[in-house]
Amino acid sequence: MQSTLETISRLHALECSVCRATYSATVLQRTSACCAAPLLATYELHEPLSPAAGIDLHEGSMWRYRRLLPLLDEANQVSLGEGFTPLLPLTSLASRYNLAELLIKDEGQNPTGSFKARGLSMAISKAKELGVAGCIIPTAGNAGVAMAAYCAKGGMRAVVVMPRHTPQAFKEECYWYGAEVHLVDGLINDCAARVRELNSANELLDVSTLKEPYRLEGKKTMGYELAEQLRWTLPDVLLYPAGGGTGLIGIWKAFREMQALGWLPAEVPLPRMVAVQATACAPLWATYTGQQANSQQYVGRPTIANGLAVPRPLGEALMLQVLRESRGTVVPIDDQGMLTGMRELARHEGLFVAPEGGAVWMAARKLVDAGWIGRHERMLLLNTGSGQKYLENVMGQA
Amino acid sequence: MQSTLETISRLHALECSVCRATYSATVLQRTSACCAAPLLATYELHEPLSPAAGIDLHEGSMWRYRRLLPLLDEANQVSLGEGFTPLLPLTSLASRYNLAELLIKDEGQNPTGSFKARGLSMAISKAKELGVAGCIIPTAGNAGVAMAAYCAKGGMRAVVVMPRHTPQAFKEECYWYGAEVHLVDGLINDCAARVRELNSANELLDVSTLKEPYRLEGKKTMGYELAEQLRWTLPDVLLYPAGGGTGLIGIWKAFREMQALGWLPAEVPLPRMVAVQATACAPLWATYTGQQANSQQYVGRPTIANGLAVPRPLGEALMLQVLRESRGTVVPIDDQGMLTGMRELARHEGLFVAPEGGAVWMAARKLVDAGWIGRHERMLLLNTGSGQKYLENVMGQA
Ligand SMILES: Cc1ncc(COP(=O)(O)O)c(C=O)c1O
Ligand SMILES: Cc1ncc(COP(=O)(O)O)c(C=O)c1O
Ligand SMILES: [Zn+2]
Ligand SMILES: [Zn+2]
Repeated sequence: MQSTLETISRLHALECSVCRATYSATVLQRTSACCAAPLLATYELHEPLSPAAGIDLHEGSMWRYRRLLPLLDEANQVSLGEGFTPLLPLTSLASRYNLAELLIKDEGQNPTGSFKARGLSMAISKAKELGVAGCIIPTAGNAGVAMAAYCAKGGMRAVVVMPRHTPQAFKEECYWYGAEVHLVDGLINDCAARVRELNSANELLDVSTLKEPYRLEGKKTMGYELAEQLRWTLPDVLLYPAGGGTGLIGIWKAFREMQALGWLPAEVPLPRMVAVQATACAPLWATYTGQQANSQQYVGRPTIANGLAVPRPLGEALMLQVLRESRGTVVPIDDQGMLTGMRELARHEGLFVAPEGGAVWMAARKLVDAGWIGRHERMLLLNTGSGQKYLENVMGQA
Repeated sequence: MQSTLETISRLHALECSVCRATYSATVLQRTSACCAAPLLATYELHEPLSPAAGIDLHEGSMWRYRRLLPLLDEANQVSLGEGFTPLLPLTSLASRYNLAELLIKDEGQNPTGSFKARGLSMAISKAKELGVAGCIIPTAGNAGVAMAAYCAKGGMRAVVVMPRHTPQAFKEECYWYGAEVHLVDGLINDCAARVRELNSANELLDVSTLKEPYRLEGKKTMGYELAEQLRWTLPDVLLYPAGGGTGLIGIWKAFREMQALGWLPAEVPLPRMVAVQATACAPLWATYTGQQANSQQYVGRPTIANGLAVPRPLGEALMLQVLRESRGTVVPIDDQGMLTGMRELARHEGLFVAPEGGAVWMAARKLVDAGWIGRHERMLLLNTGSGQKYLENVMGQA
């Protein structure tokens, strides 16, 4: 049988997310020169491309969507098998809480145990394609572990800067991959400051969230998978634990691309997108509820959901845009709530999720109680990571 | 388009692995009454079935092979998305060690972080189908965690018995799933004795390795996946960390089934199968090299590869048969060697594997050095688990 599969990336260019000025995608770019804003990859989407021609069904990773990813030469792909994670029905919790359809996408089954694998596989592949020799990252934990793993696989130097209070499991795994690890007193924004010092000569590529355009492209594959796994339908409500926000922004970008491609018919409504935050560090919630104009001065505190301790996200404007366009909302959940959510997912559904995943389930419960989500609606929870590396945070709380 | 997919299991019966006496597969069975030996599931394989009709390409888990699995009613499936794990080329180690083709199947990306998820998903599904209300298991760690998770998902009671020295991460994860955990001074055979005491009234289904027929059926899916992922070819040599041995036996069973189905053409040679053991507990090696008639009195010591500390495997005869039929061998690796293997896989390939996985890579190096494997041969390493839960065993050794 002659294959009808397209094998070439449809990447077109990069675009400033504020003024839409165009930048070349064939040289290394960081944020836009015009607005110092995140750059977004654009694709040639109007040439017809069917799912059958565009998706490689034999590839059991996010690379099944390579036509819609920015890597030009497959030889540069740095992959550990990330993505194409299971979409599971939560039948026991649905019946306990009297919900019609409750689904979870379990990103804990990715390489290095979190959805960060997607973004870093993409960013490191693209860095390799563009000739980069080493990368640096400020991280709450998971992104640093993922970067260390993909740099090891790609033969690049890796420098990881994380808060000192991050559980030891994150640090140890970085050491195994041979990364250089720096510990900082404070949260991820303090780590970002240290990154600027350490990289003042610009020898390393800074792969901070949205400071380079390609992690987002890896994250967007969650959106493609959801639509494919639900056979070109979508949930009514999608709940996502937002720190830097690339998942929220990336999934939404994927939905828009699939609409342009005709993979999602116009009559399929897009989900209402819910950003779940930690009470201890809820900058998006503070802005969304009018307590501040933006999060540029927000001060956050630590939480057991390390990935949600992002006080000043660069992608705030893009996240707010997704919430507006989707008629979504923001929900803060405190650490006790996260533990309750983790317990319920473990005992009734066999999933030992990250505190971020526990938060998402509790946010769903809260929104159902408030009537914002109807019991008849199809709900999707995004569990972004495995609970394993967080054991130190939750020991004795089972 | 009309689907040509068969949706019904081809399960035929159960068969004594010693005398081939037949047993019904529609009632609960343990070992055979005739020989007190493991029972093996048999299928109707002579009715034609093409891969296109037999494999559900849209299912990204081991359940894509449901036609060749023993579950009769899909409603009983207890799944967390296990299987269909990535097969990755180890290009950096291959070039360092001057090897033509080195591949790894990364089972660490399964639910609960190990290949045990496959066997327990299958066994718990089948237990549900046969009306079981609770299960008990003696375990070196990973199998217990997996059983706890699938029992939670399936709404069954779970009792897990493991050595006291097992890393805390295994115990904690069981607690999260709501399992009852018993700690025993000793190794897995001592745990088996405690299981008999605890379950003297036979209230719980004992899902010990090969004491019920279905974990093996889950494990065999690794063999199906390998052949499918390699597009109906196979490696020349397959290296596997053998404790109880279900993986070794199950993969071989899958190869034989695929030959009967015609999915593996007669001209495709089957791989030489290598059982990798821990020096501290190498019963199969002792028997294979003629130091003992069998392992029934073997005394083992603990190792950092907890899963290899199985002194008296019930499946010894079946393992030896696989080694004989495949012209394979046994290789013991000590704990220092495992650490070296883990380091090399982490630093050069971005994989933080279980000590069992480190052992497998060191065994490959050893067999290449000895000339038993040629540098031009296609080698496949089976990494059975993630390194995460073993951190306590390997702390500070990166
Ligand atoms: C498990 C987990 N969930 C969610 C997040 C937040 O992700 P994002 O920054 O893409 O919003 C992180 C970030 O570290 C994380 O590790
Ligand atoms: C990571 C790991 N590898 C290998 C084994 C041995 O597997 P089997 O008993 O199927 O030979 C185990 C068993 O506990 C394990 O946990
Ligand atoms: Zn601009
Ligand atoms: Zn018999």
